[in-house]
Amino acid sequence: MTDVKALFFDVFGTVVDWRTGIARETECLLSPLGYRLDWLAFADAWRAEYQPSMEEVRAARIRFVKLDALHRRNLDRIRPRFGLSGLSEDVCRQLNTAWHRLPAWDDVGQGLAILRERFLLAPVSNGNIGLMVRLARYNGFPWDAVLGAEIAGDYKPKPHVYQAACAALDLPADQCMMVAAHSSDLAAAAACGLRTAHVARPEEYGSGGGEEYPTVPVDLAARDFIDLGRKLA
Amino acid sequence: MTDVKALFFDVFGTVVDWRTGIARETECLLSPLGYRLDWLAFADAWRAEYQPSMEEVRAARIRFVKLDALHRRNLDRIRPRFGLSGLSEDVCRQLNTAWHRLPAWDDVGQGLAILRERFLLAPVSNGNIGLMVRLARYNGFPWDAVLGAEIAGDYKPKPHVYQAACAALDLPADQCMMVAAHSSDLAAAAACGLRTAHVARPEEYGSGGGEEYPTVPVDLAARDFIDLGRKLA
Repeated sequence: MTDVKALFFDVFGTVVDWRTGIARETECLLSPLGYRLDWLAFADAWRAEYQPSMEEVRAARIRFVKLDALHRRNLDRIRPRFGLSGLSEDVCRQLNTAWHRLPAWDDVGQGLAILRERFLLAPVSNGNIGLMVRLARYNGFPWDAVLGAEIAGDYKPKPHVYQAACAALDLPADQCMMVAAHSSDLAAAAACGLRTAHVARPEEYGSGGGEEYPTVPVDLAARDFIDLGRKLA
Repeated sequence: MTDVKALFFDVFGTVVDWRTGIARETECLLSPLGYRLDWLAFADAWRAEYQPSMEEVRAARIRFVKLDALHRRNLDRIRPRFGLSGLSEDVCRQLNTAWHRLPAWDDVGQGLAILRERFLLAPVSNGNIGLMVRLARYNGFPWDAVLGAEIAGDYKPKPHVYQAACAALDLPADQCMMVAAHSSDLAAAAACGLRTAHVARPEEYGSGGGEEYPTVPVDLAARDFIDLGRKLA
């Protein structure tokens, strides 16, 4: 592991807690407007549209559009189910930026500070650059660059996304390590020659459902980002 | 100026002092190997190949390649003139990374810290992402993202480079301000609808030759980055 130069991070679920974040932001915006709904169920429903919407791009049925745009389409798709058909365009636009204000898991700040001493750090997320920049500002993430889907013009787990990230930093794949709480992401990165680190996020979907352990071979598995820092120090 | 959200920075000459930096790095590498040459003249000669080499890309005579690659071609072009034909491939490769270790002008650290309080900050340079990331680490630049030529696939002052930077942050052009010590860069940015700030760097080419004042209309002109911070506060 001594020649790893850069760590690439999955963001939604691995770095930030999208579920309670979306629930909280949605409640903050819609509750004063008189709406009462199951905020966590709404977050789950919105997120459930995530993979299918990216699959349209991956399968080249639609051309690449940023995740902000997919989030908006997905929001419009689920709104009727939650009695939100009457939201104004302005409120919908604000609601869509909820993804820009998601809280980091508790260990992330300290973990990234440790990891930054030894490695270049970059998100390799399916989130677009503008979304990642605002999420970083919201949480204080010390990224060296914002890589990922937008610079690749495609969505993970397509190989080109991982390859484009390594190429952007002018590093061979085996000097880059993908860090994620999702085994499917890590399997795809490993297939491109990257090193892989799994981080346990058992609470990603509330109690149960998140990955406590990787289900594929990885170079290392950590309990959280502080543990990752210790293991890579 | 109150609705400017992001500042875009030219880097070579505006943020870092390429001339004394290249001279120093070259001397550090080649002097122990027994070479004696006019290090500043060597820096000037290397930089003189910069615009012509990018023009090949801009005019679509060659396809886009990263600035690191253009720097290497330019190095090989000038080597014979300085008695450096005999350098090994390994030394040439190290020498080419001199551009990754250029010192910031004295006012930059304090200036960026002030500006970061109010604006998103990103280099919009002709340097590639890997080069910009290493230069940022070397100097501690607090960039929010690395934009510029590589994400646009073309070189400034082509309009697409400025437009791609605004698009990456999902901002309209008039909420973005280009900061540069070169009037040609600012004129091109202004033509794309960006706001512009000139920073005086009279020492860019040694004594004289750098721009003390803009030669085109700009939204504001500053003596240095601290002055820019004051004027935008």
